Amino acid sequence: MPRQLVECVPNFSEGRDAGKIDAIVAAALAVPEVLLLDRAADADHNRSVLTFAGPPDAVAAAAFLAVEKAVSLIDLTKHRGAHPRIGAADVVPFIPIEGVTLEECVRLAERLGAEIWSKLKVPVYLYEAAARRGERTNLENIRRGQFEALVKEMGTVGARDPDIGDPICHPTAGATVTGARKFLIAYNINLNTPDVAIAKRIAKTIRFSSGGLRCVKAMGVMLASRNLAQVSINLTDFEQTPVHVVFEAVCREAARYGVTVAGSEIVGLIPRKAIELSAAYFLRYRNFRPEFVLENRLASALSAGD
Amino acid sequence: MPRQLVECVPNFSEGRDAGKIDAIVAAALAVPEVLLLDRAADADHNRSVLTFAGPPDAVAAAAFLAVEKAVSLIDLTKHRGAHPRIGAADVVPFIPIEGVTLEECVRLAERLGAEIWSKLKVPVYLYEAAARRGERTNLENIRRGQFEALVKEMGTVGARDPDIGDPICHPTAGATVTGARKFLIAYNINLNTPDVAIAKRIAKTIRFSSGGLRCVKAMGVMLASRNLAQVSINLTDFEQTPVHVVFEAVCREAARYGVTVAGSEIVGLIPRKAIELSAAYFLRYRNFRPEFVLENRLASALSAGD
Repeated sequence: MPRQLVECVPNFSEGRDAGKIDAIVAAALAVPEVLLLDRAADADHNRSVLTFAGPPDAVAAAAFLAVEKAVSLIDLTKHRGAHPRIGAADVVPFIPIEGVTLEECVRLAERLGAEIWSKLKVPVYLYEAAARRGERTNLENIRRGQFEALVKEMGTVGARDPDIGDPICHPTAGATVTGARKFLIAYNINLNTPDVAIAKRIAKTIRFSSGGLRCVKAMGVMLASRNLAQVSINLTDFEQTPVHVVFEAVCREAARYGVTVAGSEIVGLIPRKAIELSAAYFLRYRNFRPEFVLENRLASALSAGD
Repeated sequence: MPRQLVECVPNFSEGRDAGKIDAIVAAALAVPEVLLLDRAADADHNRSVLTFAGPPDAVAAAAFLAVEKAVSLIDLTKHRGAHPRIGAADVVPFIPIEGVTLEECVRLAERLGAEIWSKLKVPVYLYEAAARRGERTNLENIRRGQFEALVKEMGTVGARDPDIGDPICHPTAGATVTGARKFLIAYNINLNTPDVAIAKRIAKTIRFSSGGLRCVKAMGVMLASRNLAQVSINLTDFEQTPVHVVFEAVCREAARYGVTVAGSEIVGLIPRKAIELSAAYFLRYRNFRPEFVLENRLASALSAGD
């Protein structure tokens, strides 16, 4: 039977107290079959991000245990940090990796949301592919004004009603957003110039919100330590808008300003398929299929033998 | 414990009788843990090529069983085919894939050679990384004059003495060549021209034998069915001479002749690392490491959990 793999990347509003973060991680990893792929904490943001993966039910169970632990440990009324947030367990996306559809991940998010409300009394918003209101596709709309505004508005402003649960913020844990989305590639392209205005103009040209490529979010930022400008990109669907198409677009735009591309960087993880698509594109493979990759052939021979 | 994987690509002098080829395949697959990745038979060449992989000892055992079966079924005195050959089991290379060195594959070849001689009385030559005489690095030197010449010269011409066994050809199975080599990528680049002379000139420029890139063998051929010329390439070590370096060299040379590259093709399999290196090259990744690939991270998380 083909393997089913879902990824979950929950964000928790604690980035300083290592003991609390360890406890949240331990709660998730109590579920057998769940693999921790990454953990990152940022003290300025006062936020931590876990990345774990496994079979759908195991991942959903681990997500609930981690949320439960965060709700018990984090008091948002005392939380200060640079990153916007509305909950102790702020946002919990499910991402299909292998043998699972986005729709199945929406079901996982709905199930998790129901469990969070019924057992923890934390109201839940559904976002991205799981959104039930158009504007809630974007996390920014749900998080507007953050916890402090939400506490006041929930129950009085109808537009802030949660999707699951009563419109009452949890006194210390606020609310939680869960949902399903495709794999997001965080990808930065560095320019051989310290002129951040050029990076900003290129970002504007390539991003969806100002008429650019469909699955691209981008902004121009300055890398002070390296004295160069960077186009910082989130690629929300690399199968629709591939990495190499974005790279080539930035190279073309940079040339217009007489600037060259110094290099690019992946932040976090990139799916194998994105790498394979890019190699096939640049090498102009006429016949590329993942089955041509030795290790993929081995994996399918192995699973056929089960 | 990290996985150990060796590939074996034995060539047998039978490409027409499906029953015999099936029997040889079945002999190899009688060893548990051995995975068949590919099988190809060519009637003109009257030759078949198996590709299987698994742990070193299992692969060596499977190789012996396949050779044993081929020796019992194939009579070289009656064999006709376009491809040069000296044995029923003509050549049996071992290729390190994962967690195994080339040196360990040389040991496997030596062990297989000793077993073939002691149990089957087929004399054995060692080639490529396992060669004990300089000129036997090249298979062509060992196979000169083919079975018909070898039968006459073995035992009389010292330079044709086998590396393992007495200098007496097996009456029907001839001799066998075994050895170890790196993974070979068969890679073709098609030109937007029917002028095969251009493909031949480009091949000459890029190949090692005429002063080109170290790990490249290349020739220019005509693809009559598509009316275009092709640079047909064997890349004997893609870590030393990467696929993208060869591709870019061919593009550059083609431009000199006013010709463009129509596309490229992989024949057989390509290791994942070659794909990753090419994507990283073209996208100018500053920080690419295989651990950035989601599936690689998953695999290492899985093996750490064992």
